[in-house]
Amino acid sequence: MTDFEIHILGCGSALPTTRHLSSSQIVKLRDKLYMIDCGEGTQVQLRRMHMKFGRLNHIFISHMHGDHCFGLPGLISTLGMLGRKGDLFIHGPKELEDFLEPILNLFNKGLGFQVCFHAIDPTQHTLVMEDRSVKVYSIPLHHRIPTCGYLFEEKAKEAHLIREMADFYQIPVRLLQGIKRGDDFITAEGEVVANSRLTRPAELPHRYAYCSDTAFFPEIVPIIHGVNLLYHEATFAKQDIARARETNHSTAAQAAEIARRAEVKRLIIGHFSARYEDEEVLRLEADSIFPGTILANEGLVVTV
Amino acid sequence: MTDFEIHILGCGSALPTTRHLSSSQIVKLRDKLYMIDCGEGTQVQLRRMHMKFGRLNHIFISHMHGDHCFGLPGLISTLGMLGRKGDLFIHGPKELEDFLEPILNLFNKGLGFQVCFHAIDPTQHTLVMEDRSVKVYSIPLHHRIPTCGYLFEEKAKEAHLIREMADFYQIPVRLLQGIKRGDDFITAEGEVVANSRLTRPAELPHRYAYCSDTAFFPEIVPIIHGVNLLYHEATFAKQDIARARETNHSTAAQAAEIARRAEVKRLIIGHFSARYEDEEVLRLEADSIFPGTILANEGLVVTV
Repeated sequence: MTDFEIHILGCGSALPTTRHLSSSQIVKLRDKLYMIDCGEGTQVQLRRMHMKFGRLNHIFISHMHGDHCFGLPGLISTLGMLGRKGDLFIHGPKELEDFLEPILNLFNKGLGFQVCFHAIDPTQHTLVMEDRSVKVYSIPLHHRIPTCGYLFEEKAKEAHLIREMADFYQIPVRLLQGIKRGDDFITAEGEVVANSRLTRPAELPHRYAYCSDTAFFPEIVPIIHGVNLLYHEATFAKQDIARARETNHSTAAQAAEIARRAEVKRLIIGHFSARYEDEEVLRLEADSIFPGTILANEGLVVTV
Repeated sequence: MTDFEIHILGCGSALPTTRHLSSSQIVKLRDKLYMIDCGEGTQVQLRRMHMKFGRLNHIFISHMHGDHCFGLPGLISTLGMLGRKGDLFIHGPKELEDFLEPILNLFNKGLGFQVCFHAIDPTQHTLVMEDRSVKVYSIPLHHRIPTCGYLFEEKAKEAHLIREMADFYQIPVRLLQGIKRGDDFITAEGEVVANSRLTRPAELPHRYAYCSDTAFFPEIVPIIHGVNLLYHEATFAKQDIARARETNHSTAAQAAEIARRAEVKRLIIGHFSARYEDEEVLRLEADSIFPGTILANEGLVVTV
C-alpha cells in the first residue's frame, strides 16, 4: 500500500515560526497529487520535497483563513511560468473565488490554463470530487468561520489474479483484465469457472481524513469512523484549553479523543500553536488517550 | 556608520527554488525598519532574521509582479495578530490597493490598525516619503510593467561637539543641542564664537539605491550617482543576454556597467534566475567590470 501517502508540507498555525510552515499537505495516490490547504510558502515546500508540480490537478481548501490559502497566488503564478496547460481545480468555500479572481486578473493575464473554482458548502457532508482513483468528501467542522475537512476514499482496486489458475485454464491474455475486475471465465467446453477461484480479493480501499481547523466536534465521528489515517488539528495543550475554546481550536487530548471514539487506525496531530517550543507535550497528551499518535512535521511522509 | 544597514530577506527571481526566496529586503536605519518588496515567505524570513515586526512602518513595492508582493497578505495578517495599533504605510503602484483592499475585506475585518496606501507614479523620480531619519525617492526603471526602484537618503546628522571648546567657553548645557545643529556661541562679553570652532562636521549622509527589476537602463545613472551602496538586479549571465532582453531583465555585466558609470561605492547583485545552480558565474562577470561586487544571499547584512 505504498501508493497512498500523505506528505506534510506545513503543520504550523497562523503565526509564522522558524519551526513550522503554514498548513498544507499533499495526498499522493497512484502517482497523482491532491493538495489540501495552501498556506504561504507551500510552493517552495513542494520544490524542497521534490514533488512534481505537473501532477497536481486538484486543490482543496478548508476555510478562508490566510494560513490555509495565502500560498495560492504564488503557486498559480508558478504553474503558469512552468507552462501548465491543463485545468486546475480549486475546491473550497465560495469566497475563494472572490479572493483569487481579482488576483488572477491583476497578475496572471496570460495564464495558459484555466483555474476552475468549485464552490462547496462547508456545512454539508457531500461528495466534492471523484476521479478514477478517489472520491473526496467534505467533513463539516466547527471553527470561527465556515470550515470543512476532507475525506479521501480510495476506489476499489482490481483483484489479484491467481497466476496458476490462469495458466491451468489457459485464459487468453485479452480476458485477464476483465477477470481482475470480477468476470467469471467460461472454458471452451462451456464450464463456468467462478471469479472467486481465479482471483484473490484486492486490499480494502483505504481512507484518509483531514480535520483542521476545528474545535472539539464529536459530530464528525460517524463520518470518519474507522479511517486508516486521521490528521486532526491539535493547536493547544491541555493547560491552554480556555484559549482553545475561545478560538475554536482543539487540544491534543481532544484530537486523540476524537480518534479514539472514531476507532481510526492511526492519528497524526498538527496545526501547532507557535507557543510550544517542543511539541512533545502535545504528543504525550494525545498518546495517553490514543497510543501511537504521530506528531506532524514538515517533510514527514505517512502511508495511509 | 553601523546604523544604516541592508538586510537581504530574499534575492531569487520569480520561479521558486530551494536556494533563494522571492525579493524582499529591510533597510535598517537608526533602529527603524523599512521594507522594500515583499515576496511570498517574507514574514518567515523576518522571524528567522530576528527582526522586530513592530519597528516596521513603511513598505515600498517596486512593481506588481507576484514575487515582489505576494508576501503582503500574510505579513499584514500577522501584524494584526501581534496586536499592532499604528498605521502601516504601503508605497507603490496604484494597483497595489486593488490587490490588497479585497483581501483586507475578506480576511482582516477586525484589523487593529490602518493600512495606508500611497500610490506613486513609477515613471517619475520624486520624493516618496520623508521622516526624521530618511528621504526616500522613486527611481523609474525599465521593466515589462511600470516599475521603480527606491533611493534611500539618510538625513544629515548632527555635528560632533568639540568637548574641550565647550568646556573652555563654559557653554551652558541647554545650548549644546543648538550648537550641534549649527548655532554659533555668544559669550557673556558678546564675543561670537563661530560654530566651526566648536564642532567637527558630521559624516556625510549616506545613500542606498535599490534597482530591481529592470533591463539595462542608463537613464538611472544620474539619479544613483555616487551612492554608497547599489543593489542592482542581475537575473542572467552574459550567455543568456537574449533572454534578459526578452524579459526586460539585466545581466550581471550590465548591472556592473551601471555601477561603474554611476561611480557608486559598492555594488550588490541579486534577483538571480533559478537556472544558475551556482551564482559565482554572475559574480565573476560583474567583478570584471566592477571589482568587489557582492553576491546577495538570504541573511546577508551589508552596511551602507
